[in-house]
Amino acid sequence: MSQSISAQTLLTREMLARRRPGYSLDAPFYLSDTLLKADMEHIFGKHWVFVAVEPQIPEPGDYITVDFGNHSILIVRDDDMQVQAFHNVCRHRGSRLCASHQGQVGNIVCPYHQWTYDLTGKLIHAKHMGADFDPTEMGLKTVHARSLAGLIFICLADEPPEDFEQMVAQMTPYLAPHRLDQCKVATMVDLVEDCNWKLTMENNRECYHCVTNHPELTVSMYEFGFGYTPDVQNAAEQQRFEDITTASHARWEGMGLPSKEIDVLDERITGFRTKRLPLDRLGQSQTMHTGVASKKLLGEFVDPALGGLSFWTQPNSWHHFMSDHIVSFSVLPISATKTLVRTIWCVHKDAVEGVDYKLEDLTAVWNATNAQDRRLVEESQIGIATGAYQPGPYSPYTEGLVEKFCNWYVKRLTALTL
Amino acid sequence: MSQSISAQTLLTREMLARRRPGYSLDAPFYLSDTLLKADMEHIFGKHWVFVAVEPQIPEPGDYITVDFGNHSILIVRDDDMQVQAFHNVCRHRGSRLCASHQGQVGNIVCPYHQWTYDLTGKLIHAKHMGADFDPTEMGLKTVHARSLAGLIFICLADEPPEDFEQMVAQMTPYLAPHRLDQCKVATMVDLVEDCNWKLTMENNRECYHCVTNHPELTVSMYEFGFGYTPDVQNAAEQQRFEDITTASHARWEGMGLPSKEIDVLDERITGFRTKRLPLDRLGQSQTMHTGVASKKLLGEFVDPALGGLSFWTQPNSWHHFMSDHIVSFSVLPISATKTLVRTIWCVHKDAVEGVDYKLEDLTAVWNATNAQDRRLVEESQIGIATGAYQPGPYSPYTEGLVEKFCNWYVKRLTALTL
Amino acid sequence: MSQSISAQTLLTREMLARRRPGYSLDAPFYLSDTLLKADMEHIFGKHWVFVAVEPQIPEPGDYITVDFGNHSILIVRDDDMQVQAFHNVCRHRGSRLCASHQGQVGNIVCPYHQWTYDLTGKLIHAKHMGADFDPTEMGLKTVHARSLAGLIFICLADEPPEDFEQMVAQMTPYLAPHRLDQCKVATMVDLVEDCNWKLTMENNRECYHCVTNHPELTVSMYEFGFGYTPDVQNAAEQQRFEDITTASHARWEGMGLPSKEIDVLDERITGFRTKRLPLDRLGQSQTMHTGVASKKLLGEFVDPALGGLSFWTQPNSWHHFMSDHIVSFSVLPISATKTLVRTIWCVHKDAVEGVDYKLEDLTAVWNATNAQDRRLVEESQIGIATGAYQPGPYSPYTEGLVEKFCNWYVKRLTALTL
Repeated sequence: MSQSISAQTLLTREMLARRRPGYSLDAPFYLSDTLLKADMEHIFGKHWVFVAVEPQIPEPGDYITVDFGNHSILIVRDDDMQVQAFHNVCRHRGSRLCASHQGQVGNIVCPYHQWTYDLTGKLIHAKHMGADFDPTEMGLKTVHARSLAGLIFICLADEPPEDFEQMVAQMTPYLAPHRLDQCKVATMVDLVEDCNWKLTMENNRECYHCVTNHPELTVSMYEFGFGYTPDVQNAAEQQRFEDITTASHARWEGMGLPSKEIDVLDERITGFRTKRLPLDRLGQSQTMHTGVASKKLLGEFVDPALGGLSFWTQPNSWHHFMSDHIVSFSVLPISATKTLVRTIWCVHKDAVEGVDYKLEDLTAVWNATNAQDRRLVEESQIGIATGAYQPGPYSPYTEGLVEKFCNWYVKRLTALTL
Repeated sequence: MSQSISAQTLLTREMLARRRPGYSLDAPFYLSDTLLKADMEHIFGKHWVFVAVEPQIPEPGDYITVDFGNHSILIVRDDDMQVQAFHNVCRHRGSRLCASHQGQVGNIVCPYHQWTYDLTGKLIHAKHMGADFDPTEMGLKTVHARSLAGLIFICLADEPPEDFEQMVAQMTPYLAPHRLDQCKVATMVDLVEDCNWKLTMENNRECYHCVTNHPELTVSMYEFGFGYTPDVQNAAEQQRFEDITTASHARWEGMGLPSKEIDVLDERITGFRTKRLPLDRLGQSQTMHTGVASKKLLGEFVDPALGGLSFWTQPNSWHHFMSDHIVSFSVLPISATKTLVRTIWCVHKDAVEGVDYKLEDLTAVWNATNAQDRRLVEESQIGIATGAYQPGPYSPYTEGLVEKFCNWYVKRLTALTL
Repeated sequence: MSQSISAQTLLTREMLARRRPGYSLDAPFYLSDTLLKADMEHIFGKHWVFVAVEPQIPEPGDYITVDFGNHSILIVRDDDMQVQAFHNVCRHRGSRLCASHQGQVGNIVCPYHQWTYDLTGKLIHAKHMGADFDPTEMGLKTVHARSLAGLIFICLADEPPEDFEQMVAQMTPYLAPHRLDQCKVATMVDLVEDCNWKLTMENNRECYHCVTNHPELTVSMYEFGFGYTPDVQNAAEQQRFEDITTASHARWEGMGLPSKEIDVLDERITGFRTKRLPLDRLGQSQTMHTGVASKKLLGEFVDPALGGLSFWTQPNSWHHFMSDHIVSFSVLPISATKTLVRTIWCVHKDAVEGVDYKLEDLTAVWNATNAQDRRLVEESQIGIATGAYQPGPYSPYTEGLVEKFCNWYVKRLTALTL
């Protein structure tokens, strides 16, 4: 009855109680090692986390490792073509199994004493362990893994949130036409940002900062698609954007491409938002010229002007599915003040580099934008760390989705630390 | 009534209680993150701290940033030529405002969402914030700033110590003739020392180590001016130094230059010491040749042989005002075991580099001395960190001013943590 | 009666209580700063620790410094040729005395204020300290130091374990014929491994990993000498090794070289194990060609085929004494997750480099093996740090000596934290 409450839980509750709606979070949420542990335990430990795309492991035996917090997760395609996920740790004396970030194996062999596991995690070989040893108790520790139209999510909890199925049901019609399963990874870029992961996420959830800071991105992107609501200052432009959107949606829905907004960011445990958004000028792709980066269109597409289907998930990802390529972002905490931002560009698997697409052309916009965002979030981290910081007010017209991110975060953490 | 006492306060009190007069401080004062927090809160948070000289920001809109502990302070000259100091943090979402260490601005504009403050800290522009938003509540957080004859001190407390005025009254006659307001910064050098800030300060407060360690400094400097009292070992030399001092003081006072020692290092909250000290050989400047480094003398001076007016302040600075240049040192904690030592050399603003002075000549003595002191204090830090360290006795003849530094520190910290 | 128990002791006891015999230790033993402090206080603070060999300081005034945990120990040969050990810290204001890792001095002079100690640690000079100062109270803090046939052990405790004498009595006949006192250091290599020191030790205490990971070492070394017991999988090879050993022991004992195994690894406070082990092929030395690396044999040896006399000590060393050279390993914690592995190769002092031996030939096997082991223990550290790690079972046939290391460690820590 009188269970002792950990210092972590006490601090988490105290900070949650201070949360003032409409304002940014208190400094310890961005600074404290204790609160990062709470984030790892409750947010990254009990929700579906986006970590990879299926084209990273196309063949049986292909694996990648994904590290965040103090986890190292091994994601493998098994011989039945299923995606499997394991803790990347030998059951003998704890050695990391795979040190590379990607590779291909027949079985998973520990480098230390050659304990050998098959691709479903079963221990199939361990020398010198004697007659009393039961290998069936020494299989790899599994992690739940699911693919949503080629986007791989994992959940570390024993019992993952069930509403993942709702997201699958709602999102598959939007995502499936882009055929991520027929794609290959064109390139992947990792940035380590010196900030708390939530600053990276908050920055992603508003475009208040875009016009001044992102000259490349705003060539193709209308800032109004990213969480603006009409106010005196932008009423006319906003209306123009709404008109374009209405017309585009009619056209795209007519082609069988669901386009309307779904927003359950702060209503569901597995919160997400999606909308097919028009792009400016040629309207084809997030490139410097707004035309396609890859000539080989995805799936059955023939019309390149499909705008960008944007998909945001709590707690840690966003994606833009276009007619010619898909760009996916995952945000993974390294420590309270260090965060990995992984960007993956996928194109049709038959597209030939140098012929159908050029890497520089494909990646120019988001490499520039990521670098700019990195500076912004790192300056925020520095300012928040000074001690003079106090939570400030969000703009009701441009930072509504940041508020939803914070609401979701506060609500989930509250529910799990009661 | 029964307020809970923080772990920080308890440790601080425990360590203060162990202090043995005449002995160096206990190891945790130099090692503990908790005690560094106490230092930041009480010593650097509630006293006047020397941070800059006015020639660093000669024109309206000129700014510098000064970082110490977890503070980033923005120091600006406003349009009325007043020195203003602010916390360098946007009131919106906490971004650092100025990332550069120095620059010039019309207004202070946050790079993230362009919230704009004027040079008095008033928020004059913030887009998309709506009708309920009151910009007058969102001005920059101010910091007390005062100039003493061109030396800029700040105080982070709401109510700064009032005896700063006494220092101004006593010191202005000493400092003003050197006309720091008519100077420019010739150069500035930052050293990061791997030691606690108090070791840097203690090292500054004695010359017991000078003869063996500082061959360049002791060309012009008599070690006896820096806290020696007569004992058997140095009686004759000390007497000779006193005779020179008496004669020099008579000459300088006759020229209207106050020269006599004032020492309130451990009697006042705003503790300080000053004395105009003779220099050896040519007696003009702290250079390798003991002559002036800059031909353009300061203020109204015509006689270059004015020795060095030394000025030491608690907790963190010292200065040498000579006929041709002024050298100022500030000591700012970065962490419990890392300290910034900033050295600024000023010359007459009309002095021309390469014509009136050479940087190498101007800086040779203190660049060499700083490098030597850095090694000494870092070796102290290493030794103290070993655990075999225990406080040792100060020399009653050569380390009296170190004892005064420690007494002031212990007294102030005691008063503020009662 | 109601003494308060420190958080360190509580955590240590809690973790010790979790120990399951036959299984690797719980993760905090490899990760926690608190438990590293317990290791430093009780294991490295109260046992005999191997730190150096006498040939490192052949002449009076020769010194080395050995750093581990937060200790810096100065080891000096005094004018009477005795080995002295001191804390490397001045009694005045705590400066480290000797910053170099090795050197030669007449007296020990502090660089800060020239306090001067003789080679027995007596303070013989301190300027300006006045009449009340008693130099006899300000000698260097001594550390117990003992040489076992040229291997230098120190003990930081006031009252070192008395069973060191038993080790001396038993081991001297084994070691003395190799005449380490007539050797010189050919070379010394320091590796810093990113792991807890116990992982380095555990790795040393088994050869389950050798065949796959150490191609160079297993040219000369039979894995069966390193803790194998017969099981079905290796019965035949093990028997063959036993036959070779029996024959070799008869030959060596006949030459006056004690060879039989002594194993008191987990029975004594000063636990150790020794055995003269046959080497494969030429049987002479741990080289790539299994012949001697140095033509100048040690002591009075004429037959080079003496195998390798191996000597393992708790908590932190192992050694291989051969006919032509001696290789010694010490393991010293730097932090919970960082460990120094120091390897010293000694040859006859009259052996001439380039004539009698080549460094590359002498060091090839262990430089390669150390690099391989480093990777293994660092991968273990990474895996254990993930949080998915749980203690796994040791092989009863190949990891018995790892179990003895853990048993000794657990037993000693338990006894000292009761």
